[in-house]
Amino acid sequence: MTAKRVLAIGGAEDRENECEILKEFVRLAGGDDGEILIMTVATHEVSETVKEYRKVFRRLGVPRVKAFDVSLREDTRSQRGMKLIESSTGIFFSGGDQLDIASLLGGTDMLALLQERYCRGCVIAGTSAGAAMMSTSMLISGKPEDSPRFGNVEIGPGLDFIKGTVIDTHFSQRGRCGRLMTAIAHYPQDIGIGIDEDTAILVNNGTDFKVLGSGSVIIVDGGPMTHTNLNDLQHGDRLELHDLTLHVLPAGARFDLKKQRPVVDRRKRRQAA
Amino acid sequence: MTAKRVLAIGGAEDRENECEILKEFVRLAGGDDGEILIMTVATHEVSETVKEYRKVFRRLGVPRVKAFDVSLREDTRSQRGMKLIESSTGIFFSGGDQLDIASLLGGTDMLALLQERYCRGCVIAGTSAGAAMMSTSMLISGKPEDSPRFGNVEIGPGLDFIKGTVIDTHFSQRGRCGRLMTAIAHYPQDIGIGIDEDTAILVNNGTDFKVLGSGSVIIVDGGPMTHTNLNDLQHGDRLELHDLTLHVLPAGARFDLKKQRPVVDRRKRRQAA
Repeated sequence: MTAKRVLAIGGAEDRENECEILKEFVRLAGGDDGEILIMTVATHEVSETVKEYRKVFRRLGVPRVKAFDVSLREDTRSQRGMKLIESSTGIFFSGGDQLDIASLLGGTDMLALLQERYCRGCVIAGTSAGAAMMSTSMLISGKPEDSPRFGNVEIGPGLDFIKGTVIDTHFSQRGRCGRLMTAIAHYPQDIGIGIDEDTAILVNNGTDFKVLGSGSVIIVDGGPMTHTNLNDLQHGDRLELHDLTLHVLPAGARFDLKKQRPVVDRRKRRQAA
Repeated sequence: MTAKRVLAIGGAEDRENECEILKEFVRLAGGDDGEILIMTVATHEVSETVKEYRKVFRRLGVPRVKAFDVSLREDTRSQRGMKLIESSTGIFFSGGDQLDIASLLGGTDMLALLQERYCRGCVIAGTSAGAAMMSTSMLISGKPEDSPRFGNVEIGPGLDFIKGTVIDTHFSQRGRCGRLMTAIAHYPQDIGIGIDEDTAILVNNGTDFKVLGSGSVIIVDGGPMTHTNLNDLQHGDRLELHDLTLHVLPAGARFDLKKQRPVVDRRKRRQAA
């Protein structure tokens, strides 16, 4: 069976030094045998973004680095774009605005092709907005540094590369704990995944993921929630939520998306003296 | 039995408009029959702090507002200070540095008298540092906007007015979710209480509290934690934590400190149409 892999990065990944996360993307995409496609759907700064990522992917040993921009729905009908997606072994979505990605690609043949390529082993990676769009329920906006209020986050359907999730990025750096809890209060069937900057989850066959990078991933699980006042509230009122479950996962930690549980690796326990 | 009451405020409480929290403090202290003592142990801006709180407490109808400063250990032996504490019906600790409060008052006769006055019904209130010092395990410092790392918070014994707790303040506003989780990873026997600005917990007889004010209180309970890697780490390494329990409590919500559980008020459920 072909391995299906998605790499969702919390933004601001190292592009100067060790490039741990991008190096792993390059490795999964086949290294110097691979072909990487930079997709700048989310950003308005297309040429700067392409220039920066092209440079780093080349430095990491990939000779064939292509770029394709979608800034209008009609761009998704481009034959050149479809051919680039067809031939790539790794596709990288830049940051910007996740709603741009969903509204430009949603329902198009280009998205269907991206999903087909994913199923055939092409690694799909995205940073910041490029990671947020991979959710089932996509966090579009929401005030950070506030505690949970009814209706205080904007959520829409994501492109669903990582099923059953809500993904938030720049997580600790932008104090987004309250906003992810708010999202999960609205959609407790999804697992909330808050990814720090320079940190990523590498999802394997849609069933489990491993954490990479210098930060942590915070999981908010609304399944065990025993009480919510959400259905009694007006827009902007403060939420009361009991028994959310939280996991803190640093690099190397694993999470089972089917069981919705972190995996305990007993081998990592300290050796007895 | 005399009611024992503590009011811990997350900082930046309203002092200009409705003053909901300070009004409740004034009411508990006996209103215009009461005598309020402002204690500026935590701050270096003594005169400005006294001036500001004296003004608001007088505006809220208390004619007798006194102030006492402790900036040296020897100040705790002041007869004037002891008499003021003895005669007050409400004592208000200003913000500043919580370590100043603990290190100046710890082990003194003045602290013993404060505890005695508390047991006899004098309301003890504190904002920011004045709330943090009420913990059993006191959060002294810790980087916000970072995810949990071993040893990344400084914690010491607090003055223990609210037993079995770690209290953090300015909670959502300063993105302190990670730092409170870090504290609880180190001291999971304590309940983590993160209080937003202009928000407070009113603790009744040390057994339960009610939330007041415009923000929320986030509870982090480390009791259910099923896995931690803390004992395998070096200073600064990232923590892995499974199954922390989180509660989000807005104004009106109650928490049982003995059972370590939020209280569900069924009367608040929406009426059937």
